[in-house]
Amino acid sequence: MTGLFITLEGGDGAGKSTHSALLEDWLAGLGQTVVRTREPGGTDLGADIRELVLHRKGHMDARAEALLYAADRAHHIATVVRPALERGDIVVQDRYLDSSIAYQGRGRELGADEVRDLSLWASRGLLPDLTVLFDLDPEEGRRRIGATRGTYDRLEAESKDFHDAVRSAFLGLASAEPDRFLVIDATQPRERVAERIRTRVAELLERRPVGA
Amino acid sequence: MTGLFITLEGGDGAGKSTHSALLEDWLAGLGQTVVRTREPGGTDLGADIRELVLHRKGHMDARAEALLYAADRAHHIATVVRPALERGDIVVQDRYLDSSIAYQGRGRELGADEVRDLSLWASRGLLPDLTVLFDLDPEEGRRRIGATRGTYDRLEAESKDFHDAVRSAFLGLASAEPDRFLVIDATQPRERVAERIRTRVAELLERRPVGA
Repeated sequence: MTGLFITLEGGDGAGKSTHSALLEDWLAGLGQTVVRTREPGGTDLGADIRELVLHRKGHMDARAEALLYAADRAHHIATVVRPALERGDIVVQDRYLDSSIAYQGRGRELGADEVRDLSLWASRGLLPDLTVLFDLDPEEGRRRIGATRGTYDRLEAESKDFHDAVRSAFLGLASAEPDRFLVIDATQPRERVAERIRTRVAELLERRPVGA
Repeated sequence: MTGLFITLEGGDGAGKSTHSALLEDWLAGLGQTVVRTREPGGTDLGADIRELVLHRKGHMDARAEALLYAADRAHHIATVVRPALERGDIVVQDRYLDSSIAYQGRGRELGADEVRDLSLWASRGLLPDLTVLFDLDPEEGRRRIGATRGTYDRLEAESKDFHDAVRSAFLGLASAEPDRFLVIDATQPRERVAERIRTRVAELLERRPVGA
């Protein structure tokens, strides 16, 4: 596969959507073909699964939740992401397996390794070329969401302890794979964050095989 | 857990629904508390998943399909089946992990062992005390469905080769675990089939621990 697979990770309100849009614009300006997508919900089937997993009322078993995310992932990677990477496109994706490991593996205490294995089974082993982690105090993220939306989905509504565990899990994943991750302090000014991301992506573009 | 977990397996049109109803009535007549249920769709969440997996139009990635069944299973086992077995009830269930192994593992060629592991992760390792396999030529099953309903869901609409592979997978599972399985020739008269099932279930009831 000659494309580039870039994922954006981190808590809600940390800037993933803003910066995936900025990155898409910048890459398009360079003449690159970009597929901007997200999990859950990057396909029609995924939109239905996203509705179940984020907006359904009532208790949901933690393994069922993890399996629904994995189902969304399997269909999305097979039908959207792999075909794009095979064409040589750049995929910019809001959330991927690191979110599952952090939220379900650590937040829901299912175990990081088990959730990672589940995700890799779903995606037939696809790992990103670059993962940008937006690190932010969950309280600040929550304040930002409240200011713009005022409503919270099933995961956003979880406790402070849950979100603190998720943040620490993300940082642990980043320190275990420093080559794959770029960790961003999400309290920095937007233009400075965008510049750091562009610098790292430019390096990846230079390293792509000739003819890609 | 002091209850009994009985599953009914096999192709469509072979008599699973009819005989789970007959078994429920017979057990209730003996004064037993019975929970009759099914997968997919044995919970409110499961009903939504069942709709996605059986009635949604368009292509679905095979791993996504297997993961949706596993999500239904995780929630159903955790919230319906385990609580019933812990109360000492008898659970009579239409389809369980053997269907996943036969349809997704063999029919979809995902691999029997991988699908079995996925199911057992979803259910935290729960195996039935008894599995009644209704064995029937898929052509005959299809004829029976056509005669009563006239419409086919996503799996029922699959090819003859698919359903032949599923039938052979079920028989292979039964011969690998003869203690767990009771194989029924589904062309036999209804009353005779019911009698064989009752005989086997009566043996299990006699072997239950005192006080259960």
